Amino acid sequence: MRYSQLFGKTSKTAPKDEVAINAQLLIRGGFIDKEMSGVYSFLPLGLKVLAKIENIIREEMNKIGQEVFLPSLAPKDLWEKTGRINTVDVLFKAAPANTHSQVKNDAEYILNSTHEEIITPIAQKFNISYRDLPFAVYQIQTKFRNEPRSKSGLLRCREFRMKDLYSFDKSEEDLKKYYRIAKEAYGEVFARLGLKDLTYFVAASGGDFTSDFSHEFQVKCEAGEDTVYYDPETKEAFNKEIADKLAQKDKTYEIFKACEVGNIFPLYTKFSKAFGYEYIDEKGEKHPIYMGSYGIGPSRVMGVLVEVFHDEKGMVWPKQVAPFDVHLITLGEQHHKRAEEIIKQLESKGIDVLWDDREDVSAGQKFADCDLIGIPVRLVLSDKTLDKIEFKKRESHETKLISPEELDI
Amino acid sequence: MRYSQLFGKTSKTAPKDEVAINAQLLIRGGFIDKEMSGVYSFLPLGLKVLAKIENIIREEMNKIGQEVFLPSLAPKDLWEKTGRINTVDVLFKAAPANTHSQVKNDAEYILNSTHEEIITPIAQKFNISYRDLPFAVYQIQTKFRNEPRSKSGLLRCREFRMKDLYSFDKSEEDLKKYYRIAKEAYGEVFARLGLKDLTYFVAASGGDFTSDFSHEFQVKCEAGEDTVYYDPETKEAFNKEIADKLAQKDKTYEIFKACEVGNIFPLYTKFSKAFGYEYIDEKGEKHPIYMGSYGIGPSRVMGVLVEVFHDEKGMVWPKQVAPFDVHLITLGEQHHKRAEEIIKQLESKGIDVLWDDREDVSAGQKFADCDLIGIPVRLVLSDKTLDKIEFKKRESHETKLISPEELDI
Repeated sequence: MRYSQLFGKTSKTAPKDEVAINAQLLIRGGFIDKEMSGVYSFLPLGLKVLAKIENIIREEMNKIGQEVFLPSLAPKDLWEKTGRINTVDVLFKAAPANTHSQVKNDAEYILNSTHEEIITPIAQKFNISYRDLPFAVYQIQTKFRNEPRSKSGLLRCREFRMKDLYSFDKSEEDLKKYYRIAKEAYGEVFARLGLKDLTYFVAASGGDFTSDFSHEFQVKCEAGEDTVYYDPETKEAFNKEIADKLAQKDKTYEIFKACEVGNIFPLYTKFSKAFGYEYIDEKGEKHPIYMGSYGIGPSRVMGVLVEVFHDEKGMVWPKQVAPFDVHLITLGEQHHKRAEEIIKQLESKGIDVLWDDREDVSAGQKFADCDLIGIPVRLVLSDKTLDKIEFKKRESHETKLISPEELDI
Repeated sequence: MRYSQLFGKTSKTAPKDEVAINAQLLIRGGFIDKEMSGVYSFLPLGLKVLAKIENIIREEMNKIGQEVFLPSLAPKDLWEKTGRINTVDVLFKAAPANTHSQVKNDAEYILNSTHEEIITPIAQKFNISYRDLPFAVYQIQTKFRNEPRSKSGLLRCREFRMKDLYSFDKSEEDLKKYYRIAKEAYGEVFARLGLKDLTYFVAASGGDFTSDFSHEFQVKCEAGEDTVYYDPETKEAFNKEIADKLAQKDKTYEIFKACEVGNIFPLYTKFSKAFGYEYIDEKGEKHPIYMGSYGIGPSRVMGVLVEVFHDEKGMVWPKQVAPFDVHLITLGEQHHKRAEEIIKQLESKGIDVLWDDREDVSAGQKFADCDLIGIPVRLVLSDKTLDKIEFKKRESHETKLISPEELDI
């Protein structure tokens, strides 16, 4: 891809009301564009990162569940059945925007903030025999939440991407078994996203969902809204509420700010009971179904990756989610032919190249944009490099001259 | 994939209020589930088809534009600027669903039914020089429209998938050039979807968007809501409004029902003028930008494919969008070991197999479900087939016995 043709450009400044580093860098780098507080457009660079994150999540979730795609609109009665229509304070409804439509169809719908109300009645249609259990389904989808404060860029949005998985089991014991399977799968996801050493498995109370413990995956990160209490001896982590509950003398926690990138909730029978969803066992007897709910926010993960992987010059993407593998800079049109050959060589190996082919921009500007965009490898072709290529890794200060044959990305 | 573990099951009946064949077959086949009028969930089989359709569209669109992902929520002022907040009668707004949220954040937003109001100001931020033009961006996304009547299954939904592309040009002439490029790309999309011989390029008036001609891609289909007037001599097609306008003596049209699967609109300067979006030429002078808008409905295409490719037994998917390549049926558990070997052999060649491994279901039921689901190739392993495999194509009545080595899907 030629940078001169890429939709979305770098800029020296971010909107003044953007205080979060992730939003500042992503906007300045041309990855996202701010539509309004908590609502962003993904430009080509940003969408490439988001798609890679979602694909890693999808691959790991396919090992523990089946993908579905549930609607955003729901009839109100589903949310009335669980009572959550009155308790979820970030809930949006969809209603006619003008009187034209009111004449024809003035019904109002709920814009699902999570999908327990949707998946439970569907599961109830299909899987009511003991032979149909256990099972789990998930989706990757845009969610809407009327957040009162959304000043953290991609960390807290009114419209955001979410992977939500729902598990269905015959007993509390089976639910706990699946809970552990999901925990392992989540660990794999965050490891693949480059967040292994920064992610903590944190015991938390379940908030709206359950009165029992639930767990959060928290990434250590100054910009995070949460506080983690970590016990280096037992390697257990808790949120403040639980840490207070467990408070013991002589116990010293490491306390740090963190951002929640995933969570797992045992729902027990809250939703299955609301919908009267039971399964029939071998003897024809009915029993409650035990559910769990498991979320990861792909767009929030994207923001967190920027928060934890950046320096004073810009973003530093882990290879597996970088928008391109290589950022090639040519200084002077006389190097375009060689650039095209090198790109051909790299692309034949499946390596994606962003080529800064601009002629009306200084070398300094090109290097600054390259650092801002944060692709793992920078290659430079200039009069100085002769028939060699200057090679530099984003996170390193060292450059070296290599021959095209030595190129190994 | 083992059918016994697949989420979503076949059923003998569809909901009574579903009159459309596509909805009946897709629901009976376990591809989709009806949430309410015009709103459906995609179950694993249905999502596989939808993803294949969207991927074909994406591959062709990547040749003529760059992919972005724009938000569904918009501030009202963008829609006020173009005046469409009062004229688009299917427009939804998002508002707080309960008083909890009203206390904190009672703002209302528009749920974009199309994205001219969103992409135009973004383009205006980045591309204002003559060097930045022409360009085109597209997205594949869920759209919301408060349809007064949605009784045609996936053909007309309140919530549906849409690919929308927007082009930006320096002149009307350039816009027309790109319009032809988009037309060709659309032709390629519908050809790859198996709809080449059924798709007509139909001149139409532009409705809300423009007073000039626009064009629709219409698939000949009894269930369609539109009527096409086709001149077999000139091979030109028109909608009723245009045909009436062009009415000539001695002109005989073939008249048939059709379903619109895509459209291309020249928007001219309607939206760029509303936002004051101009480009600066070589001399520093400002000129209006010419826009075009180009839609395809992937979920509607899925419904149309069922409408035109089915028989009395069920769906008949074109290979390139079928949920699996092969539907393998075993009659008796004694054939499971061979089934596993054959699946391994096929999957090593990249061939996806749905294996009906159920033991509590009659052969007749398995064959009926197989025909209903409509995967292109059926394989049967039973006591009758001995060490051979029974091979049958979905659209054919002929079966043949082949050896595993002869398997060529």
